[in-house]
Amino acid sequence: MSDANETIAILGGTGDQGLGLALRFCRAGRRVIIGSRKAERALEAAENVRKQVEGADVEGLGNEEATAAGEIVILSVPFEHTASTVKTIKASLREGQIVVSMTVPLATAVGDGALRTVGIWQGSAAELVQSLVPTGVEVVSAFQNVSAHRLQHLADSVDCDVVVSGPKAARERVMALCPLVPGLRALDGGPLSNARIVEEMTALIIGLNIRHKCPEGLGIRFTGLPQGEAG
Amino acid sequence: MSDANETIAILGGTGDQGLGLALRFCRAGRRVIIGSRKAERALEAAENVRKQVEGADVEGLGNEEATAAGEIVILSVPFEHTASTVKTIKASLREGQIVVSMTVPLATAVGDGALRTVGIWQGSAAELVQSLVPTGVEVVSAFQNVSAHRLQHLADSVDCDVVVSGPKAARERVMALCPLVPGLRALDGGPLSNARIVEEMTALIIGLNIRHKCPEGLGIRFTGLPQGEAG
Repeated sequence: MSDANETIAILGGTGDQGLGLALRFCRAGRRVIIGSRKAERALEAAENVRKQVEGADVEGLGNEEATAAGEIVILSVPFEHTASTVKTIKASLREGQIVVSMTVPLATAVGDGALRTVGIWQGSAAELVQSLVPTGVEVVSAFQNVSAHRLQHLADSVDCDVVVSGPKAARERVMALCPLVPGLRALDGGPLSNARIVEEMTALIIGLNIRHKCPEGLGIRFTGLPQGEAG
Repeated sequence: MSDANETIAILGGTGDQGLGLALRFCRAGRRVIIGSRKAERALEAAENVRKQVEGADVEGLGNEEATAAGEIVILSVPFEHTASTVKTIKASLREGQIVVSMTVPLATAVGDGALRTVGIWQGSAAELVQSLVPTGVEVVSAFQNVSAHRLQHLADSVDCDVVVSGPKAARERVMALCPLVPGLRALDGGPLSNARIVEEMTALIIGLNIRHKCPEGLGIRFTGLPQGEAG
């Protein structure tokens, strides 16, 4: 079970996927801080969430203040802004916090297309983030393959598995967040290095969305899990 | 629709996954040639298929003879034997044939574990195979993520999507094979280079099988496809 007192900060919570998670976590009754480089954009996004989710416990802050306010800090910024964002918030991070990397190194970051990725020296975007955070902060990889459209469409189930990778205790805390969102199920993705595979899957899914004409975005499910293991 | 007159050769059809495909294609009434380095092992495997599938149209041959006999040649050999197998059959391949690569460059090939892969210079095992076949032979990537256990368990649905990548016409011929197996659905995986991602997914699934205690092997499904698009 997820700790209901845990505050979730979502940096880049003004973007499609971050906003979708903010809506869903607020709907589950969790306290959410939306972070943005520009605090006024974060305030607007928080207002947007409040309009859609009655009684939402949500606030908008600059990225550094949002980081300081969260126990779990979800990085939902485009890959090209990921390293710079982590450097900006580094002084605000403290031991025991969890940073969740959901970015994918799509080749759009270097002016190429979204059906391909760029190679990351550390192995994955999540491991790049891990290399940048202070000691005592743990990085977990999750949520890359969850469609922003589905997250924002509050009436529907998201219908997607989330492969969560990272150090065991931190990974389990992030896995516990998944069932807060109807239709999200967490799978144990093992060590952070498996983010190498999970991140790439997003590029594959974007291509499948185009070839199979699914603008709202495909989800992914693993079949054959033991009965009752539903996140 | 798949052309029922097409003969399917399965090299390495004595192994778990190749044998599983042989059983399933025979059950669908298709003619299958099982190939092996040692013809006697191929004969044994063919006999095994005949015992399980009444009226199976199956034969066992050496890899070169099997290659010559097939319109579609499925390579189901461990990664460490893939390049050498393609070199062995090269003289038997002819223009218009399709070679299906289902191998995954698991790090077991170099004495490391199955939860990791080795990097392939050409990008993927499928692209390595493409670099080795004669001009006019087309390579398609498919079936990597289908559990051998599920394929062999003929009473059950395989319950897995197959992402098929390669040149369009060849890819469509391989996609047409999938619905021959109950529970297999083909997705259009685009160009062969996407095998880079699909192959890696196998290593992720092997880890999930262990962590979630699914010795029979998980499958994968994409959710949100347009209604009726069931391969």
